[in-house]
Amino acid sequence: MTTDPQQWAADLSLLHAQVWARLIRGVNDRHAPARHPTLATVTADGAPQARTVVLRAADAAAGTLDLHTDLRSAKVTELMRQPLAALHIWDSGAHLQTRITARVDILSGPAVADLWSRVPDASRQSYGTQPAPGQPISAALDYEKRPDANSFAVLRCHVQALDVLHLGPSHRRARFDRADGWSGIWLAP
Amino acid sequence: MTTDPQQWAADLSLLHAQVWARLIRGVNDRHAPARHPTLATVTADGAPQARTVVLRAADAAAGTLDLHTDLRSAKVTELMRQPLAALHIWDSGAHLQTRITARVDILSGPAVADLWSRVPDASRQSYGTQPAPGQPISAALDYEKRPDANSFAVLRCHVQALDVLHLGPSHRRARFDRADGWSGIWLAP
Repeated sequence: MTTDPQQWAADLSLLHAQVWARLIRGVNDRHAPARHPTLATVTADGAPQARTVVLRAADAAAGTLDLHTDLRSAKVTELMRQPLAALHIWDSGAHLQTRITARVDILSGPAVADLWSRVPDASRQSYGTQPAPGQPISAALDYEKRPDANSFAVLRCHVQALDVLHLGPSHRRARFDRADGWSGIWLAP
Repeated sequence: MTTDPQQWAADLSLLHAQVWARLIRGVNDRHAPARHPTLATVTADGAPQARTVVLRAADAAAGTLDLHTDLRSAKVTELMRQPLAALHIWDSGAHLQTRITARVDILSGPAVADLWSRVPDASRQSYGTQPAPGQPISAALDYEKRPDANSFAVLRCHVQALDVLHLGPSHRRARFDRADGWSGIWLAP
């Protein structure tokens, strides 16, 4: 009989803490799996869209995650209409899948001026591309980077639920909801 | 001046071929990034959901991708209502993000009997869990694996569009649509 090296997966409270510890690691370590979640949104036509994003902040007490984006990107348009989003992280080292449901507030302008002032110059290049992200261009490099505070948006994701799957000697799956204080229940995997 | 080692990213036709080559590698190599796409679907409430799946087949000529799942899983219920899905792959070695929009056919029963006969015993454990995937259970391991051909479903994804982003010395983004024969256009990244 082997001992499961990831004993945190066998206890709801430890599992919940582990998920947040790994989210916070994603903010601070560019090589951590949680650094690059996949964000899924829904278009006006009711179809899903998914893309890689960068995790910029994680607050376990508030249950919030921050992403930065160009205010003119399709994901912002989609979130204005349907503010519910999904975030997905597969952590291969921990054999851990984290699925997050969140309600997203779109912050821009004066509300994010302080955050913008702390965005490094190199990163500012990502906000203000001309033409706007996703617009057709006639050649691959027919665009310019024009850093612009007015194009900077923060997506503040208020986590509503976590669906967590650990692939161990036996698989374990749990769901945690904000509505019940994150106490958690086990699900069949 | 440095030469871009990934010259395929500078030509629409080569880029499209590269995407499919990497999808096919995902089917044949369990360590390839395309082995584990993220599948996004939409719930009856209009909210997105995302989870890791395993890529089981890729047909470049037909423009189809196959996934296997439990017929009783939430993703099947979601796809019955909204057959449009998104698949997302981040290939860190190639600095390549592939975003796929697909219309999904759900195949089960006699239509997949031949495929089921070729699923190895170990993999069959994934289809037929009791209770069904996602059902609440009172303890983490209160479930049984009962391989069952009636729980086996193939999600045949008919690719409608590809949105491809290459992060190189300069970023390049392209979109390819089935409707225009996959000829492709460049987009601002």
